[in-house]
Amino acid sequence: MYNHRPTDRLEYFSDAVLAIAATLLATELPKPEGGTDLLAEILKNWPHYTAFAASFLFICVAWSNHHNMFIYIKRTDQYLLILHILFLMFVTLQSFTTGLLARHVGRPDERTAALIYHTTLVLMTLFYNCVWWYATRKKELMEESTDPALIKLLTKEYAIAPALHLAALIICFWNVPFSIIPIVLLYIYFALPRFSERKIMERKRR
Amino acid sequence: MYNHRPTDRLEYFSDAVLAIAATLLATELPKPEGGTDLLAEILKNWPHYTAFAASFLFICVAWSNHHNMFIYIKRTDQYLLILHILFLMFVTLQSFTTGLLARHVGRPDERTAALIYHTTLVLMTLFYNCVWWYATRKKELMEESTDPALIKLLTKEYAIAPALHLAALIICFWNVPFSIIPIVLLYIYFALPRFSERKIMERKRR
Amino acid sequence: MYNHRPTDRLEYFSDAVLAIAATLLATELPKPEGGTDLLAEILKNWPHYTAFAASFLFICVAWSNHHNMFIYIKRTDQYLLILHILFLMFVTLQSFTTGLLARHVGRPDERTAALIYHTTLVLMTLFYNCVWWYATRKKELMEESTDPALIKLLTKEYAIAPALHLAALIICFWNVPFSIIPIVLLYIYFALPRFSERKIMERKRR
Amino acid sequence: MYNHRPTDRLEYFSDAVLAIAATLLATELPKPEGGTDLLAEILKNWPHYTAFAASFLFICVAWSNHHNMFIYIKRTDQYLLILHILFLMFVTLQSFTTGLLARHVGRPDERTAALIYHTTLVLMTLFYNCVWWYATRKKELMEESTDPALIKLLTKEYAIAPALHLAALIICFWNVPFSIIPIVLLYIYFALPRFSERKIMERKRR
Repeated sequence: MYNHRPTDRLEYFSDAVLAIAATLLATELPKPEGGTDLLAEILKNWPHYTAFAASFLFICVAWSNHHNMFIYIKRTDQYLLILHILFLMFVTLQSFTTGLLARHVGRPDERTAALIYHTTLVLMTLFYNCVWWYATRKKELMEESTDPALIKLLTKEYAIAPALHLAALIICFWNVPFSIIPIVLLYIYFALPRFSERKIMERKRR
Repeated sequence: MYNHRPTDRLEYFSDAVLAIAATLLATELPKPEGGTDLLAEILKNWPHYTAFAASFLFICVAWSNHHNMFIYIKRTDQYLLILHILFLMFVTLQSFTTGLLARHVGRPDERTAALIYHTTLVLMTLFYNCVWWYATRKKELMEESTDPALIKLLTKEYAIAPALHLAALIICFWNVPFSIIPIVLLYIYFALPRFSERKIMERKRR
Repeated sequence: MYNHRPTDRLEYFSDAVLAIAATLLATELPKPEGGTDLLAEILKNWPHYTAFAASFLFICVAWSNHHNMFIYIKRTDQYLLILHILFLMFVTLQSFTTGLLARHVGRPDERTAALIYHTTLVLMTLFYNCVWWYATRKKELMEESTDPALIKLLTKEYAIAPALHLAALIICFWNVPFSIIPIVLLYIYFALPRFSERKIMERKRR
Repeated sequence: MYNHRPTDRLEYFSDAVLAIAATLLATELPKPEGGTDLLAEILKNWPHYTAFAASFLFICVAWSNHHNMFIYIKRTDQYLLILHILFLMFVTLQSFTTGLLARHVGRPDERTAALIYHTTLVLMTLFYNCVWWYATRKKELMEESTDPALIKLLTKEYAIAPALHLAALIICFWNVPFSIIPIVLLYIYFALPRFSERKIMERKRR
């Protein structure tokens, strides 16, 4: 009882960290001082706006899935907490790696910056999955009524994120711009209504 | 059930993003270092203080209306979430566009900066309306007992915001200072007790 | 009903703004880069640390009293919201005015910086009182069971804050360092268990 | 009743401050601008990444223990609030002292920076303990059903943190790199499932 705490303060803390990390992204945008042609300067900074939008959407998608995951996880213990904290640590690094990438697009060190960017995302999504793997292994942390078939489906679905980020990382060694392809696929998959959920709902109706 | 989640964590996350976006505005104010005449320097920076106050009030008005809207929206789905995330993305851009505008008042690129400022607000209020339009189309997301007449009224009221921001954007092409007129009208309208609410309440009393 | 909303999301939003404003204060501290004697540099920056501590404590005291006030205010309307937003606006300006003051201590423009600092605090505490005055005038916004004697006491107590800040502002015209005296008195008064509360409790016991 | 408030808004405010303090750490990381060899520049900045990770984990461990402590503390009064605010003040200073330390590793003023870093942590953990000591002395603030044996155990456990930070501070006078040893011990102790909790649980089972 003392060791298994309800998850609301964990969810609260995570929501706050995710919200701040998402909002801080905008503060990393370069600030044209004027004097030169403003429009040209803004257009020249396109990698910053693209990287901002990508990272913002990414953190929000992470928030939305996190939200979803804690419908099924009902208690936490010390180990789950540690895995979760490591996930949050890589979330907060997003503003740093996003700025790094944006400043190096089209420059000699573009590949290094992109590799750092993708590595952070691989680690972030990996620790996200670790939280889920750990919770599903320790049955007492889960909502009792959760359908085991749903758990299996979610486990597969969540694993797609680090897999595609790893693919992006590997593609990066060969060609930096192409590394965006797995990321776009990931967004489309996670933005659409979740396959897992529809399947479960259909089963229920039968 | 799995797909339709209660809205509290969404409201929570939005509140956090709006609160941070509002608070970060103050960090964008120029910081006089002293050495010269401080009062003169502060007075010279009036566009920054005006823009800060305008954007702060704007985000707070957005928060207050957002708060109001989620009295009627009771469930979310994946598409509503995406529209909502896009709304929040333009909220977080406020600190960037506010600083941009303030730094260019009375300078050659004033029009470009004002156009970017107004465009962000048009998009932000447009996505806000999209959330509402989507929720009212999908009846199962709404509070069942909501009076359809109230929904109609709110739909009209919410649409005023992007309409007036669009008007400001258009006026900007012709005259930048005059573009403030629709914004002031908007503030007055939304600051006053809401017409929609009074009307509904009167009907109830009868 | 539509117009009178429960206050939890307002309290939530305020808590977030106050927490962020307090935490951002630390980001305004000057960052010694080393190279010179670090300890000497840190000691030279004492006005920054003093101003940081003062403003941090001030925001926390404001939070604690705000918390207290909303035990008695149970509903909000549009006008209360506007007054409250103006209170929050001056809270977020704290990090700006604190930095301004700290950078000008012992410099020619010290008085100007101190006047700006105190003016912000006068306005912040004044709007705080406006929220209270407005709520107590409109009976339907208050917790029904609140003892009228307690309301009177709290009204007097809350009014001490803008009064002492105004005193500090006036003293500033004459002597800047002495303007700290009413501030210290204010802290001592609000840090101690509240007189109003003890009085009420004693009455209850009788 | 008026003086003893439930703790949820205090917990909320603390969670927000801790979340923001943790997230802001990432904004203090140096931002390589490119032009030189990016990888070399990143590697050269290792003290910043190490200090970031250490401080992030530290704030999260503080959050987790804070969370735990308020399972047993059920009411607050004015003095507890003041002690708590002082604890939070040193939490928000973490981003400042972390950056300070990272910028001085391997430089002449390394010791001064490390002493400042450790002093902040001693004070932060000391005020954390003060909150606990005060609450356990004033019985009416505690959850009634709390086992006195558990309180004793927790008192000992919490005291380990300032003790080990003080040890780090003292070691620092003699050798800066070795001062990390008590910190690592502290992390290991607090990351593992809490001894106190297991003991209590075993007793319950009997």
